[in-house]
Amino acid sequence: MTSQSRILIKGGKVVNEDYSEIADVYIENGVIHAVEPDLKVPAGTRVVDAKGKLLMPGGIDTHTHMELAFMGTVAADDFYTGTKAALAGGTTMILDFSIPQKGASLLEAYERWRSIADPKVCCDYSLHVAVTWWSDWVKQEMETLVEEKGVNSFKMFMAYKDVFMLSDQELHAAFSQCKDIGAIAQVHAENGDLIVEGAKRMLKLGITGPEGHEMCRPEEVEAEATQRAITIAHAVNCPLYVVHVMSKSAARVVGNARRNGCVVFGEPIAAGLGTDGTHYWHKDWAHAAGFVMGPPLRPDPSTPGYLMDLLANDDLTVSGTDHCTFSVCQKALGKDDFTKIPNGVNGVEDRMSVIWEKGVHSGKMDENRFVAVTSSNAAKIFNLYPQKGRIAKGSDADLVVWDPKATRLISAKTHHQAVDYNIFEGMVCHGVPLLTISRGMVVYEGGRVMAQPGQGRFIPRKPYADMVYKRIRQREEVRKPSAVARNPYDGEIISLA
Amino acid sequence: MTSQSRILIKGGKVVNEDYSEIADVYIENGVIHAVEPDLKVPAGTRVVDAKGKLLMPGGIDTHTHMELAFMGTVAADDFYTGTKAALAGGTTMILDFSIPQKGASLLEAYERWRSIADPKVCCDYSLHVAVTWWSDWVKQEMETLVEEKGVNSFKMFMAYKDVFMLSDQELHAAFSQCKDIGAIAQVHAENGDLIVEGAKRMLKLGITGPEGHEMCRPEEVEAEATQRAITIAHAVNCPLYVVHVMSKSAARVVGNARRNGCVVFGEPIAAGLGTDGTHYWHKDWAHAAGFVMGPPLRPDPSTPGYLMDLLANDDLTVSGTDHCTFSVCQKALGKDDFTKIPNGVNGVEDRMSVIWEKGVHSGKMDENRFVAVTSSNAAKIFNLYPQKGRIAKGSDADLVVWDPKATRLISAKTHHQAVDYNIFEGMVCHGVPLLTISRGMVVYEGGRVMAQPGQGRFIPRKPYADMVYKRIRQREEVRKPSAVARNPYDGEIISLA
Amino acid sequence: MTSQSRILIKGGKVVNEDYSEIADVYIENGVIHAVEPDLKVPAGTRVVDAKGKLLMPGGIDTHTHMELAFMGTVAADDFYTGTKAALAGGTTMILDFSIPQKGASLLEAYERWRSIADPKVCCDYSLHVAVTWWSDWVKQEMETLVEEKGVNSFKMFMAYKDVFMLSDQELHAAFSQCKDIGAIAQVHAENGDLIVEGAKRMLKLGITGPEGHEMCRPEEVEAEATQRAITIAHAVNCPLYVVHVMSKSAARVVGNARRNGCVVFGEPIAAGLGTDGTHYWHKDWAHAAGFVMGPPLRPDPSTPGYLMDLLANDDLTVSGTDHCTFSVCQKALGKDDFTKIPNGVNGVEDRMSVIWEKGVHSGKMDENRFVAVTSSNAAKIFNLYPQKGRIAKGSDADLVVWDPKATRLISAKTHHQAVDYNIFEGMVCHGVPLLTISRGMVVYEGGRVMAQPGQGRFIPRKPYADMVYKRIRQREEVRKPSAVARNPYDGEIISLA
Amino acid sequence: MTSQSRILIKGGKVVNEDYSEIADVYIENGVIHAVEPDLKVPAGTRVVDAKGKLLMPGGIDTHTHMELAFMGTVAADDFYTGTKAALAGGTTMILDFSIPQKGASLLEAYERWRSIADPKVCCDYSLHVAVTWWSDWVKQEMETLVEEKGVNSFKMFMAYKDVFMLSDQELHAAFSQCKDIGAIAQVHAENGDLIVEGAKRMLKLGITGPEGHEMCRPEEVEAEATQRAITIAHAVNCPLYVVHVMSKSAARVVGNARRNGCVVFGEPIAAGLGTDGTHYWHKDWAHAAGFVMGPPLRPDPSTPGYLMDLLANDDLTVSGTDHCTFSVCQKALGKDDFTKIPNGVNGVEDRMSVIWEKGVHSGKMDENRFVAVTSSNAAKIFNLYPQKGRIAKGSDADLVVWDPKATRLISAKTHHQAVDYNIFEGMVCHGVPLLTISRGMVVYEGGRVMAQPGQGRFIPRKPYADMVYKRIRQREEVRKPSAVARNPYDGEIISLA
Repeated sequence: MTSQSRILIKGGKVVNEDYSEIADVYIENGVIHAVEPDLKVPAGTRVVDAKGKLLMPGGIDTHTHMELAFMGTVAADDFYTGTKAALAGGTTMILDFSIPQKGASLLEAYERWRSIADPKVCCDYSLHVAVTWWSDWVKQEMETLVEEKGVNSFKMFMAYKDVFMLSDQELHAAFSQCKDIGAIAQVHAENGDLIVEGAKRMLKLGITGPEGHEMCRPEEVEAEATQRAITIAHAVNCPLYVVHVMSKSAARVVGNARRNGCVVFGEPIAAGLGTDGTHYWHKDWAHAAGFVMGPPLRPDPSTPGYLMDLLANDDLTVSGTDHCTFSVCQKALGKDDFTKIPNGVNGVEDRMSVIWEKGVHSGKMDENRFVAVTSSNAAKIFNLYPQKGRIAKGSDADLVVWDPKATRLISAKTHHQAVDYNIFEGMVCHGVPLLTISRGMVVYEGGRVMAQPGQGRFIPRKPYADMVYKRIRQREEVRKPSAVARNPYDGEIISLA
Repeated sequence: MTSQSRILIKGGKVVNEDYSEIADVYIENGVIHAVEPDLKVPAGTRVVDAKGKLLMPGGIDTHTHMELAFMGTVAADDFYTGTKAALAGGTTMILDFSIPQKGASLLEAYERWRSIADPKVCCDYSLHVAVTWWSDWVKQEMETLVEEKGVNSFKMFMAYKDVFMLSDQELHAAFSQCKDIGAIAQVHAENGDLIVEGAKRMLKLGITGPEGHEMCRPEEVEAEATQRAITIAHAVNCPLYVVHVMSKSAARVVGNARRNGCVVFGEPIAAGLGTDGTHYWHKDWAHAAGFVMGPPLRPDPSTPGYLMDLLANDDLTVSGTDHCTFSVCQKALGKDDFTKIPNGVNGVEDRMSVIWEKGVHSGKMDENRFVAVTSSNAAKIFNLYPQKGRIAKGSDADLVVWDPKATRLISAKTHHQAVDYNIFEGMVCHGVPLLTISRGMVVYEGGRVMAQPGQGRFIPRKPYADMVYKRIRQREEVRKPSAVARNPYDGEIISLA
Repeated sequence: MTSQSRILIKGGKVVNEDYSEIADVYIENGVIHAVEPDLKVPAGTRVVDAKGKLLMPGGIDTHTHMELAFMGTVAADDFYTGTKAALAGGTTMILDFSIPQKGASLLEAYERWRSIADPKVCCDYSLHVAVTWWSDWVKQEMETLVEEKGVNSFKMFMAYKDVFMLSDQELHAAFSQCKDIGAIAQVHAENGDLIVEGAKRMLKLGITGPEGHEMCRPEEVEAEATQRAITIAHAVNCPLYVVHVMSKSAARVVGNARRNGCVVFGEPIAAGLGTDGTHYWHKDWAHAAGFVMGPPLRPDPSTPGYLMDLLANDDLTVSGTDHCTFSVCQKALGKDDFTKIPNGVNGVEDRMSVIWEKGVHSGKMDENRFVAVTSSNAAKIFNLYPQKGRIAKGSDADLVVWDPKATRLISAKTHHQAVDYNIFEGMVCHGVPLLTISRGMVVYEGGRVMAQPGQGRFIPRKPYADMVYKRIRQREEVRKPSAVARNPYDGEIISLA
Repeated sequence: MTSQSRILIKGGKVVNEDYSEIADVYIENGVIHAVEPDLKVPAGTRVVDAKGKLLMPGGIDTHTHMELAFMGTVAADDFYTGTKAALAGGTTMILDFSIPQKGASLLEAYERWRSIADPKVCCDYSLHVAVTWWSDWVKQEMETLVEEKGVNSFKMFMAYKDVFMLSDQELHAAFSQCKDIGAIAQVHAENGDLIVEGAKRMLKLGITGPEGHEMCRPEEVEAEATQRAITIAHAVNCPLYVVHVMSKSAARVVGNARRNGCVVFGEPIAAGLGTDGTHYWHKDWAHAAGFVMGPPLRPDPSTPGYLMDLLANDDLTVSGTDHCTFSVCQKALGKDDFTKIPNGVNGVEDRMSVIWEKGVHSGKMDENRFVAVTSSNAAKIFNLYPQKGRIAKGSDADLVVWDPKATRLISAKTHHQAVDYNIFEGMVCHGVPLLTISRGMVVYEGGRVMAQPGQGRFIPRKPYADMVYKRIRQREEVRKPSAVARNPYDGEIISLA
């Protein structure tokens, strides 16, 4: 055992989602061994002084697309640079997506992603799997992925017509299967038909710039699909997870459904919480194009604050990034036609600081809710809790020493993300990660990432996560429809011609 | 000129949608010639004493299906019995639907309906046309119907999968065409995919009775489709008319859209305003089956009162009936399977009294709003105002003398509808039609209908109704999307492999 | 009869709230004699060519304070300049407020206002009366005002503590009396206690400028009081009219109450519909101070558009101005303390154009709804309809010839209002009054006002306006609470010590 | 150390608010020493087998009134019977209220309550203190109570006019003081003026029975006050706790405020979650009177389900009972006048089972949320966490062994509450407490309570609870209003007469 594998973090304020306390944390062999005041530790233990600092569970980014091949090019951040940047930002786990083509095997897609990611990741990760078409084979593969491959979440697209989009009937089938195998259904909620028609119209009107990207799919297109997905999921008693909630109206749909008792979770992302869609109207094409993603950021400037209010209030539950970076020269593929601009923005490194600044520093949420929405809730929904998402005896030693008073300037000049701009450029954030520990090792400190490719592990996840499925199963049992007991009708019946 | 063609109604309170006044009304040759106090009239004029009574524009029922061939049988009321019943209830015009099969000609359907209805109708009528499939031919026929046949409203189904249902893309096309030709788009808003799946599930669970009809398509199935239709219509700046709004949540969707500026109108029906879906759980099969219609009545007993509040408040705008009657022996086709119960309920005779009782007598709306929601607003939306829907010089002499204090008992034993039960059986209503005048002739009096088949006329309607299209056209002009003026991007572009 | 008293307006589009038609309008002796196409008229009749123009009922401004003595000074516009400006803007009637001091007679206040206004007014007017304190005497005077003085509306303040403000108990009493005598209760809805405390706090923090005026009474202070007033009014079945609805949240409260069946009407004003509260943060003190009024304009820039949506949709019903002008040198009384800035802004001349531009030209409402919200609804609520608010045979000849395509620039340099700035300075409005007729005389034409002081008349109003009271009376009858019939309790009773 | 003081609970499922796990729990000297699988314990330790059972933190009832002198009589349950009943129901701590008369000392009231309760309580307890009038002395005493007496919550009444009710200005002062000393403000939210007037009206109409109690204070009276309290609290940045949220509309007000970022918590109670106000219309007077409490239960039968949905969803946060029992012969004081019926119902014993049945068994919430709303959230809000409200090393040994599958029948015949009826009579609940441990001792087992009077302790609470005050303090710092920097106005100023 090297000294690296024993760490004592002394005197920090340990922040879990339920409360905070001053305590020491002792780590050995990648696991937290003790959380108590005034711990005695073996000689040779590295001691980190965290006095006056916060010690929090490492962030879990629920939504990334590292080195995704998309729209004719490949995302700038691969699993190595992307996870390095994550660690620099205080995030110690990512959930990425393996996405098969229509007609292709889900299992093969999963294996391909594993083979790409495993040797590169600097932090732990896991994989959602996309269901981009439907057949009995797909249905069977979903079961195999759950039973044998550690997958408990499947993503369905309501947009990207003819590429990834499922029909309502296929959504119904996919959601039903998710319910039957204990997985959570995820949706990209936008009405794909309307986007296609809207894009045609904009181009016809001569609107080819990035603003057309938003104008062809305004927020009601997102809200509509969100409502539809929830309705279908509720009809089959399937838990639902709405990825990248980008608009006030879509967020309201999620919140209202929760009030009505639906088991649905909304995921805003760093981009939507920290900036807005007015950038699409920027006079500099490259600037504007840099913000293109789907669903788009919204031009209503009160959107980010509203989403943060709802994240604080548990109308929205977790946060991701949809990190999928393309450099300016890649974005330029769409210089004459916004539909050809590769969709995607950065965030995996920025998420924690952006949420701290806009959420905690602003007084909208406290540090405990911060831990909930950046880490613990993700761990619970995806059935990793308390292995991940909590600082407690027995949990994985994934954590971050956080300075809530310090500030840093976000800039492409200094970030670790492999993309040549940053959508948060110039934002000054309170809340700075000082030191990140992943799998019990210090991997980020003093501004330097020290992790090696392949140092992270794929984390398999079991089905039937308690936070998601306890209610679902109970409802399955107590809410079964029943027939009215009646005497048979014995009157006259018209004879059909 | 027979004496029949000159009528003076003396001393009544003339109720229009904007105000009421005591005045005489003089009618000649089917048209109102004067509305003033103390009119002098030619000798031989029939004088009707209306002192202490209300004189209102005859009702316009926006939604009927007379003698519809549906689900293997034909509706009990034909255009003769149906319009007779209408007159007995104070309604002097109906709007029915001509519905082609998928693949069939809209024009032929229209002509067929005309040929059936024209010789039978006892009151004026007009025809909406259903768009049940999509092609360039259909698109062209819509234009012909508007330009040559007096049609300005087209109905699209989001339910009845494989029979009438359109996809979102087809809705988008049909709505676009409506906007281009000045017609209003109507929708039956329910998610047809979910209904099919829901019905399968109920039958599988052994739920074969009428309660299954509601359980397989609960109100969120209606609310979802309503939201979707509004979103699509708004995307193409097409005015929308939601037929038979049956649930609180769907009505709320309509009301919220209106608040947000959408040009959308909601039509509750007599059944939804006067009774509820608890009947589906009735122990007597025939009783329960009698209420089966789509979308179903809702089991939440506060629904009718809520819909009436919104009708009073202009969140909902007009009222129809979806009158489509099947006698018990016809309903019995579905005695072992609710999906085979012919869908439809009565209402054309009952609507005016039911709305008076639940709306006006209850204090929710006043007599002027009653006229608006039973007559004037329909006339405006379908471009018949002020020919219909107003008591004014020059308007058609379609009116009803109304006793607001008298009561009557609704019963199948006494109604004029050709069906052997009545969903309002036993309801005592304030608000009784004493005498109905259609086309300047007394056609109902003393409990007797005196109209002859073919006495009514088809009323052609022009496109671009002011109430519907003034805003649409203005928006078309001032809200045209525009592009950001930018210098072209001149930086590097990635080269595609 | 001078030729002046006979006017034919030819070929215009006559716009009433229910529909528009091309017709001639013939006026004689101050009254409309005919509205029909191709009228023949006596020789010597002045003929106004209105082809291609709109002819609308003259505007009714529901809310003005001419020459009000307030906060140590007197409003710049008196009844002469104020009504002249009204006519120049297409408004032909104003409703002003007579406001007694606490402890003083309502009747005397009324008579004083009459004696000031009668000799000066250039157009018809009427008076609301404020109830600023409570006693049996006040209660009795309210009855006298209704029975003998033509008053059917009373205004109660929930703000201006110690000056005009009533307690909840007093509101309850005043509302009850309104209901008993057939008057409508009006409220200035802001929580006066919170304003006092808020102002103290701002001054303590050194915030003395106009921005402090808004910060000490943010919109929840308005929304709270609005909710409270509605609750109290509903408890006693009294119709309620909320003057100057200034915020999204207060407007939402009104709209929701209407959905729930409350008889409540909301009045946005020109200022709130046409500009916003960001001006309070303007760097130029005089500019900022010019917008100070109570309740304040709101800093959320989406407020005016939202209020207009709700006005279009009938969540809000009528429009006024709260016209109460103070020139910059008067505003300067509060140069070191925002609580000393005289409250009030202009609007009586600007209202019609501002609503046309932001409401009609924008496509939010059509010309008929414009007439409803600028004239007809006010006439109905205050029981002047159809004498005012409609172009019809027998109605008063108060009307305006309107050019919907022309534009004009609003500016203090050109306006007729007696104040040295204009809150709409620089706004270009579509919708220009070309010619205004009041009491059958052309009083504004070619940019010149030709009316004489005293030319207008006080218009008495009867209680129990139909639009307001039909439902109230019906509810009084059918919703009377009733007791449960029970056998008396005959068990043991504890004996009190 | 007696064997009693060492307990091992073996093999149960330990349910905390964040997750559940199978573990042993070892207790010594009133404190939890270990929570781990397969614990080894000293000889002589009592071992409780909890296999297949849940082990949860003992319930905390946030709202009781034991032996309250009220309306001429004294509540039936005193601190002895009341806390015994609590333990039988799985509740191990109560928070009661000390309530001074207007004009009287808060400190004296507090001491009096202590002297009554201390010798009688069978479980731990704490005291809220009511602020029933306002003066500098009261303000000072609040500070003393916080600093020296372990009080961090003060309750203000908006009802009970002339007895306990504060004006808005007094609420503003009291809330400000709470904020300044780190306490949470609690309100009884009903408009007291409206209740007085409503009661007068009902009696005048001859409505003297229990139904009058609800009719004189319908739910908008509660919703209005709730909105007002939130507005006032938000204006001074004071955290607010709304006791006994009884209606859908009041709950919606709380939920909406939370969405808007207010720091407000809503407390539904067992009565409101488990039954409804239709009972006031019961034909048997004694039955109806038994449900009388303020605010009343609501006649809308969908209320309990709605409140439970919002409790599940965190729009509402904690649960209490307002336990304040009066036997039928006490209720009979109001047999001829509902205003004389002593207000209060049972619940301290029933709460846990009722919430389990209606909340968990129904599938609305899971077992972890159950712990949050019955225990942990109360502990956090009142600054007792994790000493109370969590099963963890170092926490107080207050816990309950719970059988989620067993059922029990609630009945006055078998309950431990000292009152001769039960508002939940006949309800069969899943979720049965098998064994309750308080302060490390088994106090309820096999249906028998074994606790002694005085066995409980008063638990002092510190101010500035993290869950309540972290955001408040941050907002205090970052949201301080600031003035616009301007050049002084140097123009003309009108001279005052």
